[in-house]
Amino acid sequence: MTRTAEELAQYLGVRLEGDPKAEISGVASPERAGKTDLIYVDSHKHLERAAKSKATCMLAARGLRLEGKTSLETDNPKFAFVKSAEWLLPRFEAEATIHGTAILGANVVVGVNVSVGPYVVIEDDVAIGDQTKIDAFCFLGRGARVGQRCRLHPRVTLYSGTRLGDRVELHSGAVIGGDGFGYVFGEGRHWKFPQMGSVEVGSDAEIGCNTTVDRGSLGETRIGQGVKIDNLVQVGHNVQIGDLSVLAAQVGISGSSVLGDYVTVGGQAGMGEHCVIEDRATVGGQSGVLGGKRIRAGETVWGTPARKLEKFKQQYARFGHLEDLADRVRELENAIGERGAGKI
Amino acid sequence: MTRTAEELAQYLGVRLEGDPKAEISGVASPERAGKTDLIYVDSHKHLERAAKSKATCMLAARGLRLEGKTSLETDNPKFAFVKSAEWLLPRFEAEATIHGTAILGANVVVGVNVSVGPYVVIEDDVAIGDQTKIDAFCFLGRGARVGQRCRLHPRVTLYSGTRLGDRVELHSGAVIGGDGFGYVFGEGRHWKFPQMGSVEVGSDAEIGCNTTVDRGSLGETRIGQGVKIDNLVQVGHNVQIGDLSVLAAQVGISGSSVLGDYVTVGGQAGMGEHCVIEDRATVGGQSGVLGGKRIRAGETVWGTPARKLEKFKQQYARFGHLEDLADRVRELENAIGERGAGKI
Amino acid sequence: MTRTAEELAQYLGVRLEGDPKAEISGVASPERAGKTDLIYVDSHKHLERAAKSKATCMLAARGLRLEGKTSLETDNPKFAFVKSAEWLLPRFEAEATIHGTAILGANVVVGVNVSVGPYVVIEDDVAIGDQTKIDAFCFLGRGARVGQRCRLHPRVTLYSGTRLGDRVELHSGAVIGGDGFGYVFGEGRHWKFPQMGSVEVGSDAEIGCNTTVDRGSLGETRIGQGVKIDNLVQVGHNVQIGDLSVLAAQVGISGSSVLGDYVTVGGQAGMGEHCVIEDRATVGGQSGVLGGKRIRAGETVWGTPARKLEKFKQQYARFGHLEDLADRVRELENAIGERGAGKI
Repeated sequence: MTRTAEELAQYLGVRLEGDPKAEISGVASPERAGKTDLIYVDSHKHLERAAKSKATCMLAARGLRLEGKTSLETDNPKFAFVKSAEWLLPRFEAEATIHGTAILGANVVVGVNVSVGPYVVIEDDVAIGDQTKIDAFCFLGRGARVGQRCRLHPRVTLYSGTRLGDRVELHSGAVIGGDGFGYVFGEGRHWKFPQMGSVEVGSDAEIGCNTTVDRGSLGETRIGQGVKIDNLVQVGHNVQIGDLSVLAAQVGISGSSVLGDYVTVGGQAGMGEHCVIEDRATVGGQSGVLGGKRIRAGETVWGTPARKLEKFKQQYARFGHLEDLADRVRELENAIGERGAGKI
Repeated sequence: MTRTAEELAQYLGVRLEGDPKAEISGVASPERAGKTDLIYVDSHKHLERAAKSKATCMLAARGLRLEGKTSLETDNPKFAFVKSAEWLLPRFEAEATIHGTAILGANVVVGVNVSVGPYVVIEDDVAIGDQTKIDAFCFLGRGARVGQRCRLHPRVTLYSGTRLGDRVELHSGAVIGGDGFGYVFGEGRHWKFPQMGSVEVGSDAEIGCNTTVDRGSLGETRIGQGVKIDNLVQVGHNVQIGDLSVLAAQVGISGSSVLGDYVTVGGQAGMGEHCVIEDRATVGGQSGVLGGKRIRAGETVWGTPARKLEKFKQQYARFGHLEDLADRVRELENAIGERGAGKI
Repeated sequence: MTRTAEELAQYLGVRLEGDPKAEISGVASPERAGKTDLIYVDSHKHLERAAKSKATCMLAARGLRLEGKTSLETDNPKFAFVKSAEWLLPRFEAEATIHGTAILGANVVVGVNVSVGPYVVIEDDVAIGDQTKIDAFCFLGRGARVGQRCRLHPRVTLYSGTRLGDRVELHSGAVIGGDGFGYVFGEGRHWKFPQMGSVEVGSDAEIGCNTTVDRGSLGETRIGQGVKIDNLVQVGHNVQIGDLSVLAAQVGISGSSVLGDYVTVGGQAGMGEHCVIEDRATVGGQSGVLGGKRIRAGETVWGTPARKLEKFKQQYARFGHLEDLADRVRELENAIGERGAGKI
């Protein structure tokens, strides 16, 4: 949608310098921008890139100006940029078409303006909210529930009974609701613990490509509202993730762990079973939290086994000086030896 | 299937206290159970949850009883629970239908009571055993062989020549038989080593969502009987995994490694090429076994590079006291210094 | 294609001993070889395997001969083997058929001898080069470009705008061009940074099963020519990978990192954002390179945080002797104590 610089300034609540009627229809990097794309400049070092850009309008940190460009001045140009992007650009086009090759089971309830792509399979008793878009090759198992304005990219699998809130976005290859990994060994083999629970994904959550979220065994796996999960992440059965938490790529959360709100987990980190990660805690990339451990609210932990970041840094620095320490012990031994040979 | 408490007690070989005619048709957690769901209670601390449950029957550890509930007394209620679940609940319904949209190549042999879902593609010369269920979007490459009573969840890929035993369960997104990762560098580029072998998966194996198992290069990759593999695991070319081993999520096994029987590998652990992990060994979560290493039968190893758990614990404890050790060296230096300044 | 030993010797430029007219039609391991399969023997210890083989012809290291076999003598039998395999065996058969169930959008340009499998979905404005093969269930988003002689195995997803060079091979479940993982937190929630860039994959690249490569946010993600990426790898938004680099399974590269040419990354290694890994550097398996770090050309690093291999080995050896060091400090304390009790 095309807007004017003035309209955008008003939406963002910021001051405009330049032409209030300048048109803005998209966002871009300075190098790729056309005349009506909005760019942002958050420091002096990027000013030259902006100067060379074809863009007419820029979001700029206070004090950054360029001759001939219309500026919207803000304390946080990057944040203003993402806000503007969401305001200018629709997440996707609602098409209100069910492709002729889509297969819908009995008792499927489809809302208004829903788009279902080619070769989608929807089993019985599924419900899909208004303005949701389901791309090619998606599979929605029996009894799944999808909220409004959701987007399922091509080739998403929802096992039976999975429930999604509104505005959830699932990327290609994601599998939600697969069986949890639980066995009891006896009589010479592994017996599968019943995996009969389900998965609930809160509104505004986004889940990356080829990520897997297992169903609860007897209870539920729950992903909170506004949670963002990157690609190739594993979320085990009965895991609970609070609102607005963020999990980077290739993280693994074992069964029955509980993450609070605003938790951040770095890439490739892992958690054993029954961990508790309290609100606003941060687990560093590649860290390993042992099963049953509790990370306190607001703490940052690092390493395997995970410990407080300050402690990790101190130990790691000490580790780096082990060679020195060994040298000092040798010198002490020599000194003692000189004065009392045979003692040690 | 609905059974009586008496029938279940007889199947399990346990003592019944209460109403022998009480009906049991499923299993559940105490909170979710209906009247005819079986629950289990393995310690006093869960007795109150059971007391509040609607369930009529419970599997209970010796000495745990509840007024008004029919009890089946057993040493291991959790194991009795999984046995009961398997006995009461069918793994899946055999439907004996080939969906009209499934595409079958030439010379495909399909057993009795086989169910093939919508948009399944089966290439030439594939054989599928009795009572197997193949869900939507599965791809079975040329010459693949699938045993009896297998379950392929939606969107499983079997590359050509893959062979599955009986009662194998493959979860959504699993890819079995992809090319191994082997190249020889020469004349300025990487030349692909031929990846012409195949994969054989033993009976009763289960493989998780989005897990990948590569075909052998010239020989075979082999997954033993009753092996359980979680989600997002990578099994390289020519790997051999013995019977009843268990691999947790995101584990990576490099090419030509050999795992014995009853091996346990924790989440995110990795093994280099040509490792040997003998029977009943355990590799801890996130551990890394260097290429070519051998872990002895029954050993538990931890860390990267992986070493015996006791050694890891000892070293790690020592690591935690490095600060102390450095302090003690400083004090020794001071003591020596007082008595012989200039010596050190 | 069947060739003679003489023709192969000529192609490889090596000396032939035995029957120049011996026929060769494939390659195999000694154990699996038929009469016309080529085998290779690179050391004395494999000579017995070769002696028992049905194969008539072998590539052999200098000085290795077998009665009754035709030998092609070479310094590097394994390399000669992969060269021979590529020469003898076509990568795949070009079939020049578009399956009746494939769905092609408007303005799709398809080259000569292109094969499109069942249930493929190709959106508008896609171009596909000559002799490319697209298997079942692939999804090519709007505006995607695929070069000549590419192979897309079943169930590959190309998000809109993805561009592949020539002879690219993508394995089952790979997702190229998914949204990058970038958010800006403000006003109580995570706002998605625009993910509008694209992915460019160079000629002769190969990408493994279930691997994910994210699109650039405002710019591009770029995979160089001849790059080989194993299964379950994550490549973040705006990452640049130079030519001929190799990434083993389950590696994770965070956003905006830059890898040079001939870089080697071991399995499960991870890199933070904005790393620079210069040409010919090697990152060991499970290593972690902290965000913003630079690894110099040709260096080998190991561990988390990653450091030079020699340093890692030295520190690790020292770590292994911590117990000894502590003992020596205790002995020093005792020695000092004897001579000056109360001093320490």
